[in-house]
Amino acid sequence: MLNMAQDRVTRIAITPVAFHDLPLLNTVGVHEPFALRAIVEVETADGLLGLGETYGDEAHLARLRAAADALIGCEVFAVNDAAERVARALRKDTTTGGHGMSGMVTGSSTADRVLSPFEVALLDIQGRTVGRPVCDLLGGRLRDEVAYSGYLFYKWAGHPGQPDDEWGAALDPEGIVRQAHRLIDGYGFTALKLKGGVLPPQQEIAAILALRAEFPGLPLRLDPNAAWTVDTSVMVGEALAGVIEYLEDPTPGITGMAEVARRVPMPLATNMCVVAFDDVPPAIRADAVGVILSDHHFWGGLRRSQLLGGLCRTFGLGLSMHSNSHLGISLAAMTHLAAATPNLNYACDTHWPWKRADEDVITPGVLTFSSGSVPVPAGPGLGVELDREALGRLHEQYLASGLRSRDDTGYMQSFDPSYTAVSPRW
Amino acid sequence: MLNMAQDRVTRIAITPVAFHDLPLLNTVGVHEPFALRAIVEVETADGLLGLGETYGDEAHLARLRAAADALIGCEVFAVNDAAERVARALRKDTTTGGHGMSGMVTGSSTADRVLSPFEVALLDIQGRTVGRPVCDLLGGRLRDEVAYSGYLFYKWAGHPGQPDDEWGAALDPEGIVRQAHRLIDGYGFTALKLKGGVLPPQQEIAAILALRAEFPGLPLRLDPNAAWTVDTSVMVGEALAGVIEYLEDPTPGITGMAEVARRVPMPLATNMCVVAFDDVPPAIRADAVGVILSDHHFWGGLRRSQLLGGLCRTFGLGLSMHSNSHLGISLAAMTHLAAATPNLNYACDTHWPWKRADEDVITPGVLTFSSGSVPVPAGPGLGVELDREALGRLHEQYLASGLRSRDDTGYMQSFDPSYTAVSPRW
Ligand SMILES: [Mg+2]
Ligand SMILES: [Mg+2]
Repeated sequence: MLNMAQDRVTRIAITPVAFHDLPLLNTVGVHEPFALRAIVEVETADGLLGLGETYGDEAHLARLRAAADALIGCEVFAVNDAAERVARALRKDTTTGGHGMSGMVTGSSTADRVLSPFEVALLDIQGRTVGRPVCDLLGGRLRDEVAYSGYLFYKWAGHPGQPDDEWGAALDPEGIVRQAHRLIDGYGFTALKLKGGVLPPQQEIAAILALRAEFPGLPLRLDPNAAWTVDTSVMVGEALAGVIEYLEDPTPGITGMAEVARRVPMPLATNMCVVAFDDVPPAIRADAVGVILSDHHFWGGLRRSQLLGGLCRTFGLGLSMHSNSHLGISLAAMTHLAAATPNLNYACDTHWPWKRADEDVITPGVLTFSSGSVPVPAGPGLGVELDREALGRLHEQYLASGLRSRDDTGYMQSFDPSYTAVSPRW
Repeated sequence: MLNMAQDRVTRIAITPVAFHDLPLLNTVGVHEPFALRAIVEVETADGLLGLGETYGDEAHLARLRAAADALIGCEVFAVNDAAERVARALRKDTTTGGHGMSGMVTGSSTADRVLSPFEVALLDIQGRTVGRPVCDLLGGRLRDEVAYSGYLFYKWAGHPGQPDDEWGAALDPEGIVRQAHRLIDGYGFTALKLKGGVLPPQQEIAAILALRAEFPGLPLRLDPNAAWTVDTSVMVGEALAGVIEYLEDPTPGITGMAEVARRVPMPLATNMCVVAFDDVPPAIRADAVGVILSDHHFWGGLRRSQLLGGLCRTFGLGLSMHSNSHLGISLAAMTHLAAATPNLNYACDTHWPWKRADEDVITPGVLTFSSGSVPVPAGPGLGVELDREALGRLHEQYLASGLRSRDDTGYMQSFDPSYTAVSPRW
């Protein structure tokens, strides 16, 4: 009955890659020497190629492969069908783990997390088919460039047993301010986020106050990844009243967040207690959060992240964007999504500056930062091209690294066997 | 920075049309001899034409014209930008009325109601540009045909002063059953909806029970358009327990609906107390409804109706689709939307059988009913073509009709000066 032939998926390649990472500290441990990602290539009968990027953990790779098998034959515009194929394929899934976020996000929807890179790749192909950038398939860009925030981390001077890295140590307010200057000098960021939950709360408060003194006009955020009790969260919230634009995941769980929200003056943001559509109703009922950080990698891709944006708008919630260590395919996808999102209230997170400039799987040149913003890629689809030689190199690095899943806690314990990841910690 | 030239809107025509309607009764009066619609044609620099259809009330036409002016120069893929242009244009709006639904829906968002036909027309053009049906721009169809419900009305034998129409009178259970047979014989409907709120509730209960006896397997619905008090609604709900799949808008307002919902066994549906995104949070907080009837004509077009669908899915609400008297452009748009909606739980409403088969503004042949369903149009865009001669004829009919807004109540009062539209009535 439908008479227009449509291009179909004929082959999907999933390539795990590893890229160098620095010893960035968080409340569950420290980043390992390599971050893992999986690069998804979706090919069609017409010879078009679409790209996606997602977590590289072994369990996630197994699910990606099961989903890929189910997607062979899927039509390029049939994103709804693709979602159903992936959900069906995962019904047989018995894999455990594979969240790719080192225990910091564990409740996200498996089906959405697995769907995401394929959805992005299908949109990439659609854009290439019709000669339009992906943002045009999402309703069109509302801005020509997307603002990102500078992501500050407590960090060691270098990985133990290796020479110090070019960033050096940041373990006190002075180190954080120094790091902020470097980030701003290099990228022009006009907002800053500090990954907290690493040092006792008073020291992190001092770091934020030092940033405020050094950069009077810049929006600031603090994210301890649920390291604090309700009372500690309230203490920090009161200490930083009027200083930070939001306090991100101070304490675990919707109930605890709701209590903190009632007692602190700033909005609470989350990418931990609201990480799937099933979390939205209870969070709204409890008035637990004022801002949701979207992340197309675990919310099911770009279209479903738009749904999350619409949910936030409908319920008067703020919308920001979360990031994990990522490469250029993800940054392109994040930028297209953000460009087409009317109610993006905050600069997006990105780990971009923490990877080596010469390590990526895409041809350089498209993704550039100016005044903290990335211009929306102008080419068809995502607007980035796979560098197959670089992909091979980072895949070799994956094989040689020996890493098969992200384990910030285990890496920390290799230096301090008494270390435990507890939440809340203070 | 963005280097791909994009087709832009160069001309928009808005043509009011009138088509014959029958004396269908509802709780605010009776349908006039003509129903009004506005046909929107959006033309681009490249000579492409996109179609939209919306209400034809004079106040709405004025707003459409203001919006059309603001849309000249808008890029074809820039639906987000179009929404912002329309919202800006309407900030100056001082028109009152123009809801096009004779008082039965008045709280819908003006910006969304005005945006809708332009959004549909832009998607039509996008589809024509890329050679894909509109459903493919919405994530792709999940079904090849869309089920509609047979819409039963109490009606007079003909308009007063005119000969009886071919349907004859339906003012009791026998008349409604006879009408149902005729609808099912002609279209194959596999679900039935009765427009209630016309006769005292016991008579409408009797009509539903007569339908249940005559058509044992068919899902049934009853929609009195908020004609009843809470207690009357509960009485009807109890009388029809296990008989109807949902009870639609028994009583006015979210608070009243919530009370009825707590006391009746079936879900309540609405296209009256939740008609805009602003209504969703209070309705959910109050647990007022179990099913929302989407309607792209007042929810802001197809993409925003998808957002409503996602909201319903997220909050575990059912999703159905509302209809007013409409022509083929609307039916095509409704069918594309429904085809691409994963969680459409019910057959969609349509007034289609109540218009003359030879009165439309599109070339016949694409929109056909089989077993109560309409195949998803297969051509690019909406898949329907404007019949300019027919458009001219229905516009002449509009001019000659003298009608400039829908007024079911006034028409009823022309026969019965004592008639008043009150809600609740019983
Ligand atoms: Mg976070
Ligand atoms: Mg209704």
